[in-house]
Formats: sequence, C-alpha cells, structure tokens
Amino acid sequence: MSKFLSKKYAKLSPYTPGEQPQDMKYIKLNTNESPFPPSEKAQKYAAEAAAKMQLYPDPECRALTEKIAEMCNLSFENVLVTNGSDEILNFAFMAFCDDEHPAVFPDISYGFYPVFASLNSIPYTEIPLCEDFTIDITKYFNAPGMVVIANPNAPTGIALSISQVEEIVKNNPENVVVIDEAYVDFGAESALSLIPKYENLLVTQTFSKSRSMAGARLGFGAANAALIQDMNTVKYSTNPYNINRMTMAAGLGVLEDEEYTRKNCLTVSKNREYTKCELEKLGFEMTKSLANFIFIRHPDFDGKYLYEQLKARGVLVRHFNKPRLSEYLRVTIGSRDEMDAFLKTLSDIIGGGNK
Amino acid sequence: MSKFLSKKYAKLSPYTPGEQPQDMKYIKLNTNESPFPPSEKAQKYAAEAAAKMQLYPDPECRALTEKIAEMCNLSFENVLVTNGSDEILNFAFMAFCDDEHPAVFPDISYGFYPVFASLNSIPYTEIPLCEDFTIDITKYFNAPGMVVIANPNAPTGIALSISQVEEIVKNNPENVVVIDEAYVDFGAESALSLIPKYENLLVTQTFSKSRSMAGARLGFGAANAALIQDMNTVKYSTNPYNINRMTMAAGLGVLEDEEYTRKNCLTVSKNREYTKCELEKLGFEMTKSLANFIFIRHPDFDGKYLYEQLKARGVLVRHFNKPRLSEYLRVTIGSRDEMDAFLKTLSDIIGGGNK
Repeated sequence: MSKFLSKKYAKLSPYTPGEQPQDMKYIKLNTNESPFPPSEKAQKYAAEAAAKMQLYPDPECRALTEKIAEMCNLSFENVLVTNGSDEILNFAFMAFCDDEHPAVFPDISYGFYPVFASLNSIPYTEIPLCEDFTIDITKYFNAPGMVVIANPNAPTGIALSISQVEEIVKNNPENVVVIDEAYVDFGAESALSLIPKYENLLVTQTFSKSRSMAGARLGFGAANAALIQDMNTVKYSTNPYNINRMTMAAGLGVLEDEEYTRKNCLTVSKNREYTKCELEKLGFEMTKSLANFIFIRHPDFDGKYLYEQLKARGVLVRHFNKPRLSEYLRVTIGSRDEMDAFLKTLSDIIGGGNK
Repeated sequence: MSKFLSKKYAKLSPYTPGEQPQDMKYIKLNTNESPFPPSEKAQKYAAEAAAKMQLYPDPECRALTEKIAEMCNLSFENVLVTNGSDEILNFAFMAFCDDEHPAVFPDISYGFYPVFASLNSIPYTEIPLCEDFTIDITKYFNAPGMVVIANPNAPTGIALSISQVEEIVKNNPENVVVIDEAYVDFGAESALSLIPKYENLLVTQTFSKSRSMAGARLGFGAANAALIQDMNTVKYSTNPYNINRMTMAAGLGVLEDEEYTRKNCLTVSKNREYTKCELEKLGFEMTKSLANFIFIRHPDFDGKYLYEQLKARGVLVRHFNKPRLSEYLRVTIGSRDEMDAFLKTLSDIIGGGNK
C-alpha cells in the first residue's frame, strides 16, 4: 500500500478470482466456465469486428441491446449491456445504495456482493441462509435497502421459484431488488417476465456461462426504463465505451445461434444429474443445484483435503475456506468426459482412505 | 431518473462522447481515432483468441503487462492494464482522492476529469489555462491534492516538456501526479522514464489513438509498484476480469508490430503539419498542437457555424459549446485524402461567405 491510498480503502479486501495455475494442464472445474467452445457465429463476428478496431465502439451498443431486448420480450430502454455482469452489479450498488440505503443479501452467496458494498462505502446486512442453505424469503420483505439475490444462488445452486422472487419484489416497494441470474439457464426460472409489472426489479444475466463467453466479458441488466436510465448515468460517468467491438459482435453472433446455446445448456443439465447420481453412489451429499455446478460434501472426508487431493491429481475444483462452507466443494459441470475423469479421480482418493 | 437513484448522483452530469450519427457516411474527424486499420497481427491474434472465448481471461493480464513493461523499460509490477485509459484514470481518482485529497486539473482539458471527480464525490479545483492556452506549471506546485495533466493537453494539443512535467512531479511530494499521455505518440515527450525516480508519478496511456485500437478498449497505467498495487486493489474490487481475451491478444499483436505504429504516427504528424500549413493560407489561427488533432479558429467565422456547415457537407469535427472554446474547432488528423477533403470543404464554406 502506498502512502497515497485514500483511507477509505485502507481495509478494502478485494474479490479473489478462482485460481488459474499454469504449472500443469488441469481439468478445470473451478470457475463455472462452459465446457463448449463459443458459437461459430460468435467467433466469426468477433474476427470480422477486429478489422474495424481503430474505430470506437457504439457507446449505446444499440444493435446488441435491441437483440437482447427482443430475446427478453422487452424494449431497448429496458436493457443495459455491460462489461460482464460484474459491471451491472457494481452499477446497481453505486446507483441505488448509500448511507441511508444499505445493501441486503444472503450471508452465503456470490462473494463479490460485500466487495461491491465496501468499494462504494455502502453499509450492508448479510442475512443467514437456513440450515439447509435455502433462502427464507420473508426475511427480505420490507428490507432496509437494496436486496440482492443470486438465483440460483452460488455456491449452493439452489433456486427460488419465480413466485418466490415475485413475493420479494412485491414486498419491497421502496427498494430495488436485484436478481442475479448468472446461472439461470441450466434449469431455474428467470424473473425477466416480471419486469413490466415492477418498477423496482433489476434482473442481471451474463454471457459467461451458458453462452461460452466468459473470456469476452459480456453481461446485461434488464429493468424498468427509469432504473436503466439511472445506471446509464453511472456508465456514462465511468466508461462510456465499456464494451469493445469484438465482444459486441460476438454477443450478436451467439444470439443468432440460440439453438446451440439451448443444446449446450441441456447437455450441462444432463451431465449434472448424471454426476450427482454417481456421487451419491460414492456416499456424497449435495444441495439441489439447478446451476452449472454442484455443491457437494462427503461425511467422511474434509472439503479441503478433497480439494488438495484432486488438485494434486490434476483436477481443479473450488473450495471456500469459510464457516459452513469448508466441508464442501463447488464443482463445475463440464463435459461428460471431464465429469467421468473427475468421478474416477474422486473415487480413487476416497478408496485410498486417509482423511 | 427513478425514485431509487441515490441522492449523491442526483446532479451527476455524465460525459458526452463525440457524436456518431448514422444518417449518412461522414468523414469522421471528431473523435481522434486513427485513420489506419489495426495492425494485421492485432487482428490475427484477436481472431485466434475468439476461439477460446469460453474461458475467463487471465485477470493479471500477465503476458500483455510484461510486454508493455518491456516497452516502457519497467517491470511487471509497474504496469496495470485497463479497459481503456478511462478505467485507469477512474481508478486513480478512486484510489488517491477523497474529501481531504481533492483533484486538481486545468479548467480546459479532457472533459472526463470533472466527471470522474463528481462520480466519486471528490472535490476538485480547476486551474485556468493561460490566455494562450498554455499551462503555468508553477500553479500546480504543492497542490492541495492529486494533480491530473493531459500531455499533450486536449483539446489544445499543446504539450509540456519532460522537464516541465518533472518540475510538477518534484514539487508535489505529498500528491500523486497523473500525466495522461493519450496523445503522446504524435510528437510530445513521454514521462515514462521518470517513473523509477518518483514514487508519486502515474503515467497513463491508451492503445486507442496511435495503435488503432479505440474499438478494442485498451489502456494502461505505469507507476511505482506501490501505486500500481493500490489501483489493483480497486480493480480486484470492481471487475477483476476487466480485459477480454480478444483485446488482450490484439494488444500483444500490435506491440509485436511497433514499426507499423511508428510509421502511422509519423504519417499523422506529417498530415498535421501539412493541414496546419494549408489552414494558415485560409486565414485560420491555431494552437501548437503535437497531438493527432488540431485546435483551430477563424477570425471571421464562428466555430459553431463552421461545425454545422462542415457536418451538413459530410465532415464531422468537434465543437465545444463552452466559454473560451466556442470559437474553436477540434479536428482529428486523418489520412491525407481525408484532410484534403476537409480543407476543400472548409475552403468552400469560407468562400461561400455567410458568418
């Protein structure tokens, strides 16, 4: 830390991305990436866009925004495209929270929420998940400020139904409710259809998971036009050209290829159910995940031990060294071959015995 | 504005990017883009990277950061790569300014500085340029907070010498001094070589202008390792994966093609001097610009009038409707053909007569 750093950040503790070790080739099941290559149209359009790289991108992202709006049955005014969904989430914390409007989210969820709050000097309340990792929606009714819920939640994968989401939205007329749907495409219900009914609902999604574009950085928020306008004020005061040409073009390409995305999501869901089934045979317990990852523990083996043993054998999964989570592993659902390799390795470790 | 927008942003006035009208094909001399296509290597690497879009980019941007560090005669720890230089500038305002450490910059400069300050609720002082648009460096000695100087300055194009920059840095031991070198490659001197000597100097650069990559969004900051570490704390609390794979790859490509960049910069400088010369023949006055744009006025014609007449004839330039600037036009230096078309059109307008 330099002597120049503002005191407001002296205790800021940044987010820790999943590790990306370069020492050997791993089966990477630790950052919830897609096991499938990007849509060929996405690749083609990105390559074409690279030839016009000397010109600024359209700050409005009009073509892509309209295409996303169409997909969501909404209008251009209801959508804001961002540099990953992290950016739209940060915009929401910036625009809708302050000293008098804290942020409210589950104690176990996407690890970035408390970081966004701290970064923007926003007070926040973490509401404990129930014993079984589910969300008691009544605890979010008439919250003291902006509510943020990942649906499905991470790292549990457990989803709320759309009617449960609606109850939260309906019971917070004075607060923005953010539903972070990063993992919604693998089996959960989206709240996008509620947007025309509620002025306080912001739904965020990403192209990183179901659309195989984590490396392109593309996300968006959908909401009432006034909320979008507020966040555009923040965007145009931060980085008006926040989406580069290649990513914008790739986004258009993948949306012209929805059949590919649907097929991949279906494969991931099938591989998830298959993996769960096999893990149960090995004695694992798990949450009812509807995401592209599972959250598992073994009654006889410590989470950290399993993580380390898997890593030593070339399989990366994510372990969170935190209360209530440390027994568990979060495992991304990859291709069938990757899941078979993971299961075989895990079986070897468990068979091997040492706790 | 929704009822949910935080009061802190109620009066926030965002930055206005240069217009990008779609109604007809313009000769675009209004946003300081390069008239040259991106390096072929940049295009090729970006296209290749698109095939791996399903994987998150390296949050450290290690390969590109090392390459930039090498170019600057610095180390990996001295460089932070960002989503355009707007992002590194915003990081600097966030990290090094607060209520007790205001920002200090010229009253006529990059229009985003006061926006960054407002966005982050940072007080700021604008120091008037001299009558001839030059900077009196002594007015920045022992400033009350972080000093930000664009060098060359915008929209005037006037540059400080490296020894003038050093005087400012030396005379602000308690403040960070940011030298924004977006336009340095067209004839001015960079302050990069001063970094090893001063713990308080941050130099920012962009790939948007000299490297034909405005559409890719790539910039960087170079400074003492402790300053870079502070800004990394902000980055990892905002958007750790802020550079997408295609842009990162394109950045590596263009840096392997420095001869192309050098040649383009030289052509722009030549076209600038040629254009100045021709404009003088038409009775124009101008600042001594060392950037890829010129700042011109005609004693007999109003800036707004010329801007509108040029636009009506298919030539876009930038006009700032502000005190001291409104007589002027900022004109990007394009290709020789573009400059000839601009000169011809301008000559027609002036010949036509009406003020």
